[in-house]
Amino acid sequence: MELRRIILGHFLVISLALNMGLLYRDYYYNGNRKPQDVFTFKNKGKNASLYAKRDAHLGKRTFLEASKASSSSSSSSTVLDEVIDLDHGDPTMYERYWQQMGDKTTVVIPGWKFISYFSDVSNICWFLEPEFASAVFRLHNLVGNAATEDRHIVVGTGSTQLYQAVLYALSAPNATEPISVVSVAPFYSSYPLITDFLKSGLYTWAGDARKFKLDKPYIELVTSPNNPDGFTREPIVNQNHGTLVHDLAYYWPQYTAISSRADHDIMLFTVSKSTGHAGTRLGWALVKDREIAKKMTEFVMLTTIGVSKESQLRAAKILQVISDSHEQKVSKESEAFFDHNYNLMTRRWQQLKNAVKASNLFSLPDLPTEKCAFSGRTFATQPAFAWLKCEGEIDDCENFLRGHKIITRGGKHFGDSNKFVRISMLPRDEVFDKFIEQLSIISSLPSSKDR
Amino acid sequence: MELRRIILGHFLVISLALNMGLLYRDYYYNGNRKPQDVFTFKNKGKNASLYAKRDAHLGKRTFLEASKASSSSSSSSTVLDEVIDLDHGDPTMYERYWQQMGDKTTVVIPGWKFISYFSDVSNICWFLEPEFASAVFRLHNLVGNAATEDRHIVVGTGSTQLYQAVLYALSAPNATEPISVVSVAPFYSSYPLITDFLKSGLYTWAGDARKFKLDKPYIELVTSPNNPDGFTREPIVNQNHGTLVHDLAYYWPQYTAISSRADHDIMLFTVSKSTGHAGTRLGWALVKDREIAKKMTEFVMLTTIGVSKESQLRAAKILQVISDSHEQKVSKESEAFFDHNYNLMTRRWQQLKNAVKASNLFSLPDLPTEKCAFSGRTFATQPAFAWLKCEGEIDDCENFLRGHKIITRGGKHFGDSNKFVRISMLPRDEVFDKFIEQLSIISSLPSSKDR
Repeated sequence: MELRRIILGHFLVISLALNMGLLYRDYYYNGNRKPQDVFTFKNKGKNASLYAKRDAHLGKRTFLEASKASSSSSSSSTVLDEVIDLDHGDPTMYERYWQQMGDKTTVVIPGWKFISYFSDVSNICWFLEPEFASAVFRLHNLVGNAATEDRHIVVGTGSTQLYQAVLYALSAPNATEPISVVSVAPFYSSYPLITDFLKSGLYTWAGDARKFKLDKPYIELVTSPNNPDGFTREPIVNQNHGTLVHDLAYYWPQYTAISSRADHDIMLFTVSKSTGHAGTRLGWALVKDREIAKKMTEFVMLTTIGVSKESQLRAAKILQVISDSHEQKVSKESEAFFDHNYNLMTRRWQQLKNAVKASNLFSLPDLPTEKCAFSGRTFATQPAFAWLKCEGEIDDCENFLRGHKIITRGGKHFGDSNKFVRISMLPRDEVFDKFIEQLSIISSLPSSKDR
Repeated sequence: MELRRIILGHFLVISLALNMGLLYRDYYYNGNRKPQDVFTFKNKGKNASLYAKRDAHLGKRTFLEASKASSSSSSSSTVLDEVIDLDHGDPTMYERYWQQMGDKTTVVIPGWKFISYFSDVSNICWFLEPEFASAVFRLHNLVGNAATEDRHIVVGTGSTQLYQAVLYALSAPNATEPISVVSVAPFYSSYPLITDFLKSGLYTWAGDARKFKLDKPYIELVTSPNNPDGFTREPIVNQNHGTLVHDLAYYWPQYTAISSRADHDIMLFTVSKSTGHAGTRLGWALVKDREIAKKMTEFVMLTTIGVSKESQLRAAKILQVISDSHEQKVSKESEAFFDHNYNLMTRRWQQLKNAVKASNLFSLPDLPTEKCAFSGRTFATQPAFAWLKCEGEIDDCENFLRGHKIITRGGKHFGDSNKFVRISMLPRDEVFDKFIEQLSIISSLPSSKDR
């Protein structure tokens, strides 16, 4: 309830700033058009003007002037480099792999293509490019992470749009009150915001699923592996009139063992977290029920009249190359996608676990170990986010880490305690290495030893 | 009010089917990957199963079985070819121009590009690709149709998303009742649907601006040239507390004389109707007020976490080529974009006017003639849609034309009389020619002469 009030009240903008993990990366293209990355961060202490730059995007008026000052200075990169931003889940870790793959995934689009709104009117989702649909089915069948038989694909502008499409599809247009939307805490921090920001009469955020006891229609979101904590999730509400939505954005073999083929009624996926192409803004839903698929399609039609064909064409190519990389393993240079990124995640998690072990300040959850039916490996879930707990007397872990120039997202945004923070495990190598280094420095500080 | 009830009631799905102009075009790629187009239509009389195919996308259960039967038959193209679908504004007319331009607008996107969510965090609209922003400013400055100084660009997944972003930006999160949204009838048929379908507590459709007399906050949509009737529009509500939104999707020199540089607070544009790339799903807003631009950006962040980078990159290229085509006029083959399409629209409108003149059944509005500051030509507006009136005793023009295999959208969807229909002027040449031919046939029928 408190969360709800904050969202709907005049703190909306600030809440958004903190929750959506806005973003502090400047692309500066040099003469060769290679991106030279400069990070700006929400380190309010020493770098207020840098933090302001981010806040400026979200309407925090007090920081506007500072922002201007900051962006007019071109010599700020030295200062920026000191701060480590792991607040948002920008999956730039994947850039290196795709660079190594060279032109295999290059797409070429002539100017006369994609003039029409329509992709395939024989499909319920008439704006779904058939090439993208085939690539999705092929990849799921290869990985074995989701059932595809008798499923409709609904494509969306990221799984964020599909999440809203599901709420629309599952709500009754003539109901006297909005349907309740719940998820077990800690839940993805965007769920409450996206559910409530338009004050829809169709659906409303009802918080932690564990506390939901009403005998009324509800939608339970089951995110597995869970964002933020990485645990495998099952539905928990035991009432009538419920509909389950499975957010499987992270159910891929670089993050977790594929223990079985998910076979749920509504399953959401996104390229952001599977291939790393967040800028492509593309997600897909596998939907059993024809009427739900139709209503989801209707939502996407009403809100954006379909989904970028360019994104679909490019994602199709990328998914096909991933499948190819596993079916035609040839050389070291063309290492298979999931193997390469599984190994990368393993290394990162080992680094983080070592750093946490060497400290008396932090702890990590014990994530389940299972055998992966795809790779044959037995391993513990190594999620895209670490759910780090500050031990002892540190009650505001986000604030504590910010004081040490590590920017994370505090537990309260996920409906949990501020003893926790969510940390992105998907930045570029240099940022991740610096994060580990910084954790060790914090642990070795005299003030830290006192705690 | 009646319209409102229909929208919110159980006719929603049907209403959507009729309003959004859903779409009946199958792409069948042959071996050479050239699109072979097959049209299916909403001709309920003789071709119920074809109509069903469309309806199937929108949840009309009764047609589902018929749909299945239809789509399993591959020999239906003869029947389909008989029907002329001009209901929706799919701008396939533009395909030919872009084909003639060859590889000038071809884009090549390597796999490692656009991994990040972020394009340029120094911009309020942090997901706006700088290349796209420059191309937008350059084109407006060339054409002279909109002021760009001290404007923020907010990019959206089509202007449909930006329309909603504007409503969100202009509404007060803590207001006791939703803000009223009005537009002079006939208004774009999607406005009421998109405004009300989520039953938002922030904004509500309040119908024809001419009838709005309340002394309460409101948003007036000024679409100029107007969809559906092509007239130049000025704001009409004369109350306090109003904010104007100018939808200038059709304010381009192939459709209307650029009489002056539009200089409004909030102006919406889209590539669908300017360049013809509807499948790209890309629009932009020019916004004077920094806080409004921020809130619009926030809306796009919350609903889709930004806008496809691929679409932006491709649109940037296309807009640049259009500007180039005017600044470096060289040969017949590379005829300048607006000249080519102005000529095409002139020919089509002449054909339509001749056909209407030769008949005693129809009439067209007298659209204003002005001198175009861009081209130097003096001409009457030749809009993307014709607002055709059935004269005499024909009270349901949509139904009358459907009986003659011409599919249009009836006046009631635009808040006007069913004596009118909206007809797309942007189909491919062969469809447009057939439409003109069919109009002449109708006019020459004995039954038509009786009226």
